[in-house]
Amino acid sequence: MTVPPVTKATAGNFFEDFRLGQRIRHATPRTVTLGDVAVYNGLFGARFAVQSSDAFARQIGYPRAPIDDLLVFHVVFGRTVADISLNAVANLGYADCRFLKPVFPGTTLTAVSEVIGLRENSSRKSGIVYVRSRGFDDSGDTVLDYARWVMVSKRNEAAPAPDEKVPDLPKCVEPAQLGSACPTIDNAAYDAELAGSHRRFGAYRAGDRIDHVDGITIEEAEHQIATRLYQNTARVHFNLFAESKGRFRRRLIYGGHAISLARALSFTGLGNAFHVAAINGGRHVAPLFAGCTVFSWSQVIATAEIPGRKDVGALRLRTIATKDRPCADFPLKTGNDDDPSVVLDLDYWVLLPR
Amino acid sequence: MTVPPVTKATAGNFFEDFRLGQRIRHATPRTVTLGDVAVYNGLFGARFAVQSSDAFARQIGYPRAPIDDLLVFHVVFGRTVADISLNAVANLGYADCRFLKPVFPGTTLTAVSEVIGLRENSSRKSGIVYVRSRGFDDSGDTVLDYARWVMVSKRNEAAPAPDEKVPDLPKCVEPAQLGSACPTIDNAAYDAELAGSHRRFGAYRAGDRIDHVDGITIEEAEHQIATRLYQNTARVHFNLFAESKGRFRRRLIYGGHAISLARALSFTGLGNAFHVAAINGGRHVAPLFAGCTVFSWSQVIATAEIPGRKDVGALRLRTIATKDRPCADFPLKTGNDDDPSVVLDLDYWVLLPR
Amino acid sequence: MTVPPVTKATAGNFFEDFRLGQRIRHATPRTVTLGDVAVYNGLFGARFAVQSSDAFARQIGYPRAPIDDLLVFHVVFGRTVADISLNAVANLGYADCRFLKPVFPGTTLTAVSEVIGLRENSSRKSGIVYVRSRGFDDSGDTVLDYARWVMVSKRNEAAPAPDEKVPDLPKCVEPAQLGSACPTIDNAAYDAELAGSHRRFGAYRAGDRIDHVDGITIEEAEHQIATRLYQNTARVHFNLFAESKGRFRRRLIYGGHAISLARALSFTGLGNAFHVAAINGGRHVAPLFAGCTVFSWSQVIATAEIPGRKDVGALRLRTIATKDRPCADFPLKTGNDDDPSVVLDLDYWVLLPR
Repeated sequence: MTVPPVTKATAGNFFEDFRLGQRIRHATPRTVTLGDVAVYNGLFGARFAVQSSDAFARQIGYPRAPIDDLLVFHVVFGRTVADISLNAVANLGYADCRFLKPVFPGTTLTAVSEVIGLRENSSRKSGIVYVRSRGFDDSGDTVLDYARWVMVSKRNEAAPAPDEKVPDLPKCVEPAQLGSACPTIDNAAYDAELAGSHRRFGAYRAGDRIDHVDGITIEEAEHQIATRLYQNTARVHFNLFAESKGRFRRRLIYGGHAISLARALSFTGLGNAFHVAAINGGRHVAPLFAGCTVFSWSQVIATAEIPGRKDVGALRLRTIATKDRPCADFPLKTGNDDDPSVVLDLDYWVLLPR
Repeated sequence: MTVPPVTKATAGNFFEDFRLGQRIRHATPRTVTLGDVAVYNGLFGARFAVQSSDAFARQIGYPRAPIDDLLVFHVVFGRTVADISLNAVANLGYADCRFLKPVFPGTTLTAVSEVIGLRENSSRKSGIVYVRSRGFDDSGDTVLDYARWVMVSKRNEAAPAPDEKVPDLPKCVEPAQLGSACPTIDNAAYDAELAGSHRRFGAYRAGDRIDHVDGITIEEAEHQIATRLYQNTARVHFNLFAESKGRFRRRLIYGGHAISLARALSFTGLGNAFHVAAINGGRHVAPLFAGCTVFSWSQVIATAEIPGRKDVGALRLRTIATKDRPCADFPLKTGNDDDPSVVLDLDYWVLLPR
Repeated sequence: MTVPPVTKATAGNFFEDFRLGQRIRHATPRTVTLGDVAVYNGLFGARFAVQSSDAFARQIGYPRAPIDDLLVFHVVFGRTVADISLNAVANLGYADCRFLKPVFPGTTLTAVSEVIGLRENSSRKSGIVYVRSRGFDDSGDTVLDYARWVMVSKRNEAAPAPDEKVPDLPKCVEPAQLGSACPTIDNAAYDAELAGSHRRFGAYRAGDRIDHVDGITIEEAEHQIATRLYQNTARVHFNLFAESKGRFRRRLIYGGHAISLARALSFTGLGNAFHVAAINGGRHVAPLFAGCTVFSWSQVIATAEIPGRKDVGALRLRTIATKDRPCADFPLKTGNDDDPSVVLDLDYWVLLPR
């Protein structure tokens, strides 16, 4: 009776398994449907009119309601986990994340990652893997493109270090690169009352701070359902038996869950920011667990016109999410001011009608 | 660095913000899909054949399975919360709620409310706002029409009281007003065995009492998912951090959750009552919390023929839902008999095949 | 005021209500939609490419992604509960379960059961009812056919015993009977990299043991949502009020939940086993409760070619699921070796591309 070896696909890759320039076609294509949209809505309850209503979306120039940008992100990200981050010690960062084409229900998403950087840690126990991941639709068009870096364990400490290569990644996506996932909007047809906010692009100024007011408590069933919906198989999210013996003694919530909650909460104050066009960077500052109530606030870092677009403008936002701490006084976590309630610090671009 | 004021849309309206005759177009149109139906089914598990099966629905005269009437109600109601009841102290009642047109997956629902009454409380701290809310489909047809009154806080106690106007609302919807959301049913094609009950309209008599037998325990994740699905943003349902310091020390479940559970349970004994045609009135008698097991029973208050309809008849039902108390002995909460287990007392019309 | 008697449909059948040869058309036809698929995916997170992707399914010969075989099983099974097992003391076994036709979103499933065996227990308090249940699609074609036996209470111990008849059921479905729910697969078009595994049919040998590695913790909300999605109304799954006074002092999870979890976990090691073609038998060895973490492992009992099929081959698997016990050492529950962690012992056929 033979016991077949666990394959690479099942144990995940270790640091020494990655090679610079390596291209990984990720498993399990995923058709994203109206059903997925409904489950996602039940879990986050976002109220942006464009994603909520086919009629509203059509009126302004979409063929129908597009799938929430973050659901697209989570599904593409979910494809990459088994190959990239199953043995990750830490998810270190994102950069240059651009939403390139709207995705509609019925689209099958696939993902490919390329290793764009490698750097062994001085401990020789792990290293940092930089990948550029892309999500594709049925036509083979790229719908999402982002860089991500994770710290990955080595299988064998004695394995030789690869040549070090740290990619040069932009701190911020250029305004000229925004908007390709947003059709030209018929601005006159954009019904601000129906959208729930009269504050269009021109109503915001760099420096504005917005308290998103509400808080949402997370249940274990909720983050598990979300994370499984994305087919993200990272063990720490699902396995209480193992995690109860681990560092946190409980399941760790997928970082993307906090992003989606913060985005849904941001409707209060940013009701017309209907499209996440790019993510410049993000840090999961502290772990998040079931039972926590997530609050959030945002600061407008910059406003930008998009070259060639008269219909929409862009806000660069910094959105902070906290656990068990309302955000009326705009808490931050910086080197000097270590507020343990901050869980997420996200830098991204949203589009609003002008 | 400016801190923009929270807008009305984000803080909700206070009593003095309402004016008699005021018309409010509510935000966030919502396309209700097959996905929403599935999430709703997972949360309530109703078994009425018409809503469960396209084939059954078509056989009796619908173009396909209609969306559960209560899901339509919850979605329309959800639109109104941010404008009407975000600062509500209490949700006092419903009346004259009529389902006017069947709603099918793919329909985008919008909602408008009109202020039909105002009365300041003697305390001057709050007042009662009466609204008539309507839900519309893509054609602009009214699918749902109901009156509701809520006690809303004043922002400023010193604000002058409005002229008092208490609308005259019917205690009961007239039978002639029922049935417009129900196409003419091919009664011979109604397969009672497949529907799960041989008791048609003629098998019920005024005074009949029916124990719905089963009980369903509610989890926090479940009522949160349901209430977010409706984009109902009332804070008490989601924010444990705030509610743990509040009156109940925990999240309060949306009253409509009890209605949907009672309706799903009522299949046992009322299997052919396939359509909720109207709600005459309803009281959320006591708060409901996660961990409670909901039971229910119904009494037939009246039977009615619908003028011009030979296919269906109407039962006026009083359905009582309890928490942690089986209903085999038909518990009630009245002035003299204060049973703390009763959470819902609902008066409504259902249609059955004749 | 009359109190109408609870009908048979509401109280379920007792042992003496069944007659040999009796044919029961079960209530509530159910259209299974993309929405149901999404809820199911959120609950189990399976990653088999054929069910996950319309594009992948089309490429190999399906018209679109079929509905997960086990979701079909649970929905058909759910139809039968109210008539067959509402008064069941124990769900004793399955046999000869064959998936006969692929089911696609939009299909309305109905179910019929025939009583194929009866045997009163010596205690005279209960008896064993054997039924053959079939699920049908809109065309009236059988999509699923299985035998099941349950121990059902008697209403009245003094009721006379029926003639004893124990049906002859196969221990294993013959390979020639497999595959009718699987179209001819274009093997060359089967993209193993995208499917997540390079191990096709030929890579497995009888005797192989596979640890599925991961574990998934079950929440109350999750199994309740799943079981309601199937409209399975067995009381023990939903009613904490009653069950807290019962044998286990908590809700018992539907046995099929463990089957779906084990199947989803089995992707790790069996990524190309895209179709469950038959279930030879299964035992729910121990009860399963919320809070438990389910692990699983499989053994290949046999490999088989399917007569007339060059495209796919069959593996007969024995999959064991445990609670709160990783499966790296392949635990079993046998007469001599009573491992209380084992909850499921399932014998079934899966198909893989050759």
